[in-house]
Amino acid sequence: MKYKKKDRQNKLVEMIEETPFITDEELAKKFGVSIQTIRLDRLELSIPELRERIKNVANKNWNEELRALPVEEVIGEVVNLELDNLAISILDIKEEHVFSRNKIARGHHLFAQANSLAVAVINDELALTANAEINFTRPVKVGERVVAKASVIDQDKNRTIIEVKSYVQDELVFEGKFYMFRSAEK
Amino acid sequence: MKYKKKDRQNKLVEMIEETPFITDEELAKKFGVSIQTIRLDRLELSIPELRERIKNVANKNWNEELRALPVEEVIGEVVNLELDNLAISILDIKEEHVFSRNKIARGHHLFAQANSLAVAVINDELALTANAEINFTRPVKVGERVVAKASVIDQDKNRTIIEVKSYVQDELVFEGKFYMFRSAEK
Repeated sequence: MKYKKKDRQNKLVEMIEETPFITDEELAKKFGVSIQTIRLDRLELSIPELRERIKNVANKNWNEELRALPVEEVIGEVVNLELDNLAISILDIKEEHVFSRNKIARGHHLFAQANSLAVAVINDELALTANAEINFTRPVKVGERVVAKASVIDQDKNRTIIEVKSYVQDELVFEGKFYMFRSAEK
Repeated sequence: MKYKKKDRQNKLVEMIEETPFITDEELAKKFGVSIQTIRLDRLELSIPELRERIKNVANKNWNEELRALPVEEVIGEVVNLELDNLAISILDIKEEHVFSRNKIARGHHLFAQANSLAVAVINDELALTANAEINFTRPVKVGERVVAKASVIDQDKNRTIIEVKSYVQDELVFEGKFYMFRSAEK
């Protein structure tokens, strides 16, 4: 749906408040405009770019909110969390994460970021992974920052399905669907 | 197929020579006899149990044979390797591998063992994971030893499909199918 500029900008403010880690590309798609238009909108509205928005919330203490594990056991840094809904983390790929030969991030680190985020998002003290289907959609190099977003897409009494998508800037680098067991809620 | 005892024992010796990491349970299934029968056969034939057979080969230097990565980058200890065919590793689950709350091994460690073994088995200097489907079939506790077996099940010029099954003793704890890219062979 196309909006007039003023309407679009109002909607944009709302949307970024609700989902502060939405990328410019995603916003562009939602509004059916170019990424450049979104950048100009943000400039006019004094909304910082995604990277800055992430930094602003990264220093929050999440331990009071996490239920399934302590925050130190999440691989990557949690920057947003709504239990049983969504969670976001960032992981900076360093030398210790890559193959020595080609400096490409090893799959299990991207998996660990995604899987631990899938555990973290669950509002239950017991959360275990049963199955997962995962895709590595492009190699990640040392020095890149991976933003993972976990969304609960289905849930019943003792099973939760979580989709995790991980990006380097606007490029999808990993996606996974995690089928999690949880203890039955009282 | 049922064998007479002598034939079965001859076959058993052959089979263990060919695939030294076969479990008693697998042998029992293959011969259509009980696990107890296999144990008695091994006793009569002076064939050590699986755990001992693993130890005997664990001190080999695999670096001369591995192509896709140095042996230090394999998670777990490689105990058998036939490039483009099969590989086996063992991982002892320690405190650093488990959730602090329930002492259950974190999924990404089992995944890392399996995925790095899937890389290791490939006879090529470039091997990258494209997709995987994985199942965690029962929780693994601290103190348990996980034996992972990677088998190449399909292969064409620049793609290899590898199945990894991980066991604690005779119990399946993880299985995964890994779709790997490799550089095209010359």
